[in-house]
Amino acid sequence: MNVLLVYAHPEPRSLNGALRDFTVNRLEQAGHAVQLSDLYAMRWKATLDADDNTAPQPGARFDPSADSMRAFAGGTQRADIAGEQDKLRWADALILQFPLWWFSMPAILKGWVDRVYACGFAYGVGEHSDTHWGDRYGEGMLAGKRAMLVVTTGGWASHYAPRGINGPIDDLLFPIQHGILFYPGFEVLPPHVIYRSSKINEANFGEVREALGKRLDTLATTPPIPFRRQNAGDYRIPELTLRPELAPGESGFGIHAG
Amino acid sequence: MNVLLVYAHPEPRSLNGALRDFTVNRLEQAGHAVQLSDLYAMRWKATLDADDNTAPQPGARFDPSADSMRAFAGGTQRADIAGEQDKLRWADALILQFPLWWFSMPAILKGWVDRVYACGFAYGVGEHSDTHWGDRYGEGMLAGKRAMLVVTTGGWASHYAPRGINGPIDDLLFPIQHGILFYPGFEVLPPHVIYRSSKINEANFGEVREALGKRLDTLATTPPIPFRRQNAGDYRIPELTLRPELAPGESGFGIHAG
Repeated sequence: MNVLLVYAHPEPRSLNGALRDFTVNRLEQAGHAVQLSDLYAMRWKATLDADDNTAPQPGARFDPSADSMRAFAGGTQRADIAGEQDKLRWADALILQFPLWWFSMPAILKGWVDRVYACGFAYGVGEHSDTHWGDRYGEGMLAGKRAMLVVTTGGWASHYAPRGINGPIDDLLFPIQHGILFYPGFEVLPPHVIYRSSKINEANFGEVREALGKRLDTLATTPPIPFRRQNAGDYRIPELTLRPELAPGESGFGIHAG
Repeated sequence: MNVLLVYAHPEPRSLNGALRDFTVNRLEQAGHAVQLSDLYAMRWKATLDADDNTAPQPGARFDPSADSMRAFAGGTQRADIAGEQDKLRWADALILQFPLWWFSMPAILKGWVDRVYACGFAYGVGEHSDTHWGDRYGEGMLAGKRAMLVVTTGGWASHYAPRGINGPIDDLLFPIQHGILFYPGFEVLPPHVIYRSSKINEANFGEVREALGKRLDTLATTPPIPFRRQNAGDYRIPELTLRPELAPGESGFGIHAG
């Protein structure tokens, strides 16, 4: 497979840096082709703004979606954005690796999403009708590809357990896994989460590495999270609420995996 | 009251820009003092890195938490970070205003959190013992202050309803409201969410503005979301799971408001 690893940690000599190197190696040794987007090393521009279109309209009001659509369709996106989109087209699988900062991605990675996910590429795709509300949530330009999160946390696993104070890890990652990955079409594998990162040392690193290694070895075969497709009949259109006969009486993130 | 408005939209001539101006005006006319952090106008540095400490240790491995703690305690933080912390100390209430991009904040605002929320300021505060796991989730440096989100979305309210495909808005905002605001001590008011932002025009803007105006008029009196305090007896320490007799058999974000 072709694998794109998008990686966001400022220090190469960190646990995350070691896991990044291990990941690239393990995948290549298994015969995969790997591209690495090391966002800090690339000095990735995190902030979406009017400069992302190289053909701005002087004096015009900047509309993030409309401008993104114009730049994408007209081929006037900044080269860094177009380059990442090319990597996504090339990839059969995407891995996002990051430390959980404030229960989400580091800003630099959020800025990769905000900018690379252009209108016409990751959203604003497909027709809107009575039976089809855009190519999204299971359809879209990235359909047929797989994606997986590799996340480190300082907190303990119990803090992220179903009744843990931080909230369940699957719910904290839902906006990313469902909202960012499943939305433009990725099949999303269960995340690989490494807790209590500050307690990882030379003695236990081998174990940590091998647990990740197993996930990388099964990247092509691990069953994805069974998120429900938007346009396959489970949702009312255009309200986009789950039909009452499915998960009756329930609500929350959990009902969107069938 | 002293109110800090942290605002993240790239175009002043946008709905968000108009709501920002309205907010500042309405609060000042009611006798409040307002400071505005307009992150795009400030060209806010979104990416946390070693340069955030003006006294880096040459050749040393960069550890985001440890370095942040050293810079905060030693007074060597970059001026932009220290300036925002001063505004937070000054404020009685914080408003974060932003468009929901990919079910979270724009990267520039996440980078405000990542960088301004220093170790020793917003986390890593207080003792860890058998009965007290740091001053957080209801305690901390920002305790006694109020906070509120003002959020615009392109999607419809039904898409964010309890059974809507995007997930319930309160759950999508939980990582921000509980994980970013309640964590360092803020009392968090219910969010003010403006749906279908592209459908707002001159004809209905007055209504939109007045709905926000009512929330601003009651900023000091609206009851906060009753998030449970970490160290007040509801959680086991150090596992930090909710005691089994509270919300028995339930799990998810909802159990953390009592």
